[in-house]
Amino acid sequence: MFAPVYLDYNATTPLDPRVLEAMLPYFREQFGNASSRHDYGRTARWALDEARSQVAAAVGAHPTEVIFTGSGSEANNLFLKGAAASLKPGVVAVSAVEHPSVREPARDLLRQGWQLREISVDGEGRISPDDFQAALLAKPRLMSVILANNETGVLQDVPALAQQARASGAWFHTDAVQALGKIALDFRALNASGVHALTVSAHKIYGPKGVAALVLDKRVELRPLISGGGQEHGLRSGTENVAAIVGFGRACELAMARREPDSAGLSALRSQLERGLAQQGATLFGQGALRLPNTIFFAFPEIDGETLVSKLDRAGFAVASGSACSSASPEPSHVLRAMGVAAELSRGAVRLSLGTGNSEQQATDFLAALADTIFQLRRLTALAG
Amino acid sequence: MFAPVYLDYNATTPLDPRVLEAMLPYFREQFGNASSRHDYGRTARWALDEARSQVAAAVGAHPTEVIFTGSGSEANNLFLKGAAASLKPGVVAVSAVEHPSVREPARDLLRQGWQLREISVDGEGRISPDDFQAALLAKPRLMSVILANNETGVLQDVPALAQQARASGAWFHTDAVQALGKIALDFRALNASGVHALTVSAHKIYGPKGVAALVLDKRVELRPLISGGGQEHGLRSGTENVAAIVGFGRACELAMARREPDSAGLSALRSQLERGLAQQGATLFGQGALRLPNTIFFAFPEIDGETLVSKLDRAGFAVASGSACSSASPEPSHVLRAMGVAAELSRGAVRLSLGTGNSEQQATDFLAALADTIFQLRRLTALAG
Repeated sequence: MFAPVYLDYNATTPLDPRVLEAMLPYFREQFGNASSRHDYGRTARWALDEARSQVAAAVGAHPTEVIFTGSGSEANNLFLKGAAASLKPGVVAVSAVEHPSVREPARDLLRQGWQLREISVDGEGRISPDDFQAALLAKPRLMSVILANNETGVLQDVPALAQQARASGAWFHTDAVQALGKIALDFRALNASGVHALTVSAHKIYGPKGVAALVLDKRVELRPLISGGGQEHGLRSGTENVAAIVGFGRACELAMARREPDSAGLSALRSQLERGLAQQGATLFGQGALRLPNTIFFAFPEIDGETLVSKLDRAGFAVASGSACSSASPEPSHVLRAMGVAAELSRGAVRLSLGTGNSEQQATDFLAALADTIFQLRRLTALAG
Repeated sequence: MFAPVYLDYNATTPLDPRVLEAMLPYFREQFGNASSRHDYGRTARWALDEARSQVAAAVGAHPTEVIFTGSGSEANNLFLKGAAASLKPGVVAVSAVEHPSVREPARDLLRQGWQLREISVDGEGRISPDDFQAALLAKPRLMSVILANNETGVLQDVPALAQQARASGAWFHTDAVQALGKIALDFRALNASGVHALTVSAHKIYGPKGVAALVLDKRVELRPLISGGGQEHGLRSGTENVAAIVGFGRACELAMARREPDSAGLSALRSQLERGLAQQGATLFGQGALRLPNTIFFAFPEIDGETLVSKLDRAGFAVASGSACSSASPEPSHVLRAMGVAAELSRGAVRLSLGTGNSEQQATDFLAALADTIFQLRRLTALAG
C-alpha cells in the first residue's frame, strides 16, 4: 500500500513502536485501576509513579509537580481557569499568538469578570518588548506566553519575559507543547526565572494521544476542572489512563535521548526545503526569528492554502494549512494576522513540520511535487483570467 | 506466573483482546490527527465517525448526541458545571448515593451561588419517593440521579423519576457508567421520559481507560470545561484520542452482543456467592432492591474492610473496600451512610464485582479463602481481647 509522505508532525506524530511496546502490558495483563488496593492496583500505581518520574526528568521538574491530564488543551484550560477560580478577577495577559486552547479559556474568563490583555508581536512573530512592558503596567494576575508557536515554530524568550513579569506578581504559564522534544526544557531553571507552570503533551513527541501534563509550581493554587475521586492530588479526578501515561513516560525518555541528533538532521532538512521554497517564490513566515528546527510556514501569493494542501494530498504529501489544531473551525490564521501579514497572503499559508520519518529524498520529492502543483494552479488561474 | 482472581470489575475491567485488536492500527500506521485535512487525517476522522455510531447504537442515541470525553468523571463534570454555567444559579438536586464525580461538582456549584439539595434513599439504597417529591418543590434547575450504584449495584427507576421531574423544568442527568453493558440502556426512551443526558465510560465494559462519553439532548446548552480548537461540536476541545475512541466503539459493539448471556451467568455466580456469604454470617447491603447482576456489597460485623481486602489480596483475590474510585481519598462509604448503615458496620464493607473472567470454581475458592481469613481474623481478635 502507498503511504503518503508525512510532513505534519506538529499536528501529531506517529507512535514510536518502543512506546507502544511499553504500553501493551497495561492493555493486557496489567489492567488494574491505580486506585485499587490489591495486586492489580498496586502494579498500575507503580507504573504511574515511574512514568511521572520520566516526564519530570524530561522537563527538569520534580515528579510531584507533574499533573497528568487528557490533553494539552485540558492542561492549558486547567491552568487558566483553575488559577483564575482561586483569584479575585483581574487582568489576564496572553500573547497574540497563543494556541486556541489558551486563547479561548482566556476569553472565557471575561464572563467571570476578568479583563483580557493581548500582547502584540512583531512581523517575525516575536513578542513586542514594548507592548510586554505596557501589559505589565496593567498588573496582570495571570499570564501565558507560548514557548514555541505551533504554526510558525517561532520561539519566545520565556525566561526573560517571566523575569520581567516577576514584579507584577502574576502567575506565569507557558504552553511548551511544541517545544518538548525539539528544544531543551528545564522547569527548574524556568521556575527560577519566574515561570510557574508549563504544558507538555505526549502525542507531539511520538507518544500516544489522550495524555498530557501540567507541570506546576505548588505555590499556585488551582481549582480542578474535573472534581470527584481526588486523583492527581485532587487536581484532576477520574480513573488514571495508565497505559497512555506509561507511553508518555517512555516517549519522554526516548525524546531526551534523541533530541540533539534529531535537531541537527531536521535543521538540515528544513534548510533544504526553505531554499527550494524561496527559489519557487514562496514567502516564508518568521524566518528572521529563532524557531523550532522542524517548522516551516510559507505562502505563495495568489495561491489558496486549502487548495494547495488538497492538491499536495492527492500528490501523496500530508501537510497542513494554517494550524491543524484549530482546523475543526477553519478561519484565517490569527498568528499571521498578529504578525501583520496581509489577509490575502495569509489565505495561502501552508505549514510543513518535519519529524524522525523524513529524509532528504522526501524533501527533494516534495519540492518537485510542489513546483508541479504551483505551475498547474497558476496555469488554471491564467486560463480563468 | 500466578495471576490473582479478579473480583473488582466495577473498578475497571480488563481490555477485551478484540478491542485492543481494533485499536492497534491507530497506534501504528493510522496515526493521523482527525482534524488534519489530508489522507492520515481523514482516515482518523472516519474511524471517529464509526466509533461514534457504535457508541450511539449501544445506548440508543443518535451519533450527534455523543460527546467524547477523557473519563466518566469528566462527562459528569461537563454536564453539571457546563449546564450550570448557562443557567442562572438555582437549586441543583442530586441523590445521596452519587459517585464522587457527581457529588463533588454539585458541591463546587455552591461557590457559584447554587444551592445543593441531596435526595435521600431508603435502607436498600433506593431513592425515597417522598424526599424526591419534596426536592422537586425546591424547583431544581439541574438534577442528577445515578442509574446503577457503583458500590451496591442498586438500580434507580430513572425513567419514573425523570417523568416526575419533568414539570420542574430541570435538566435531568443520569450517571450510567456502571449500567452500560450490564443492563439495557436506551437514551431515546429515557429522553422521552425526561432524561436529558447520560454518562457512559469505556473502561467499565472491557474497553480502554481514558475515554468516555456524555450523551446529550441537544436542547441542553452547555459551556465547555475545555475550550480551544472546537472539537466535539465545541464542547470538548483537544486532539481526539482516536485509538481509545475506536476501542470504545468496538467495546460497545461487543457489550451489546454479550450483555444478555453474560447477565444470566453473572446472576448465577452472584447467587452462589451471596448464599456462601450469608452462611458465613455476612450482612449484604441493598439485597432487597433491584440491582446489577454482578455486584455484591457486604460486611462482617467487627471485621475491618481494609484488613479483609488486604488479607484476601495476599490470598490471591482482588476485591475492593468501599468504592475504588474514591479510594484515592479513603473515608467511610457515603452510600452506606445514606442507607442508614451504622458506621461500625460500614467500616467492614467489601465489594465483589464480577465479570466475564469469573467462574463457579473461582467463586467456590473465594468462599473458602474468605472463611479461612475470617476465622483467622476472629481468632486474632479473640486473642487480643
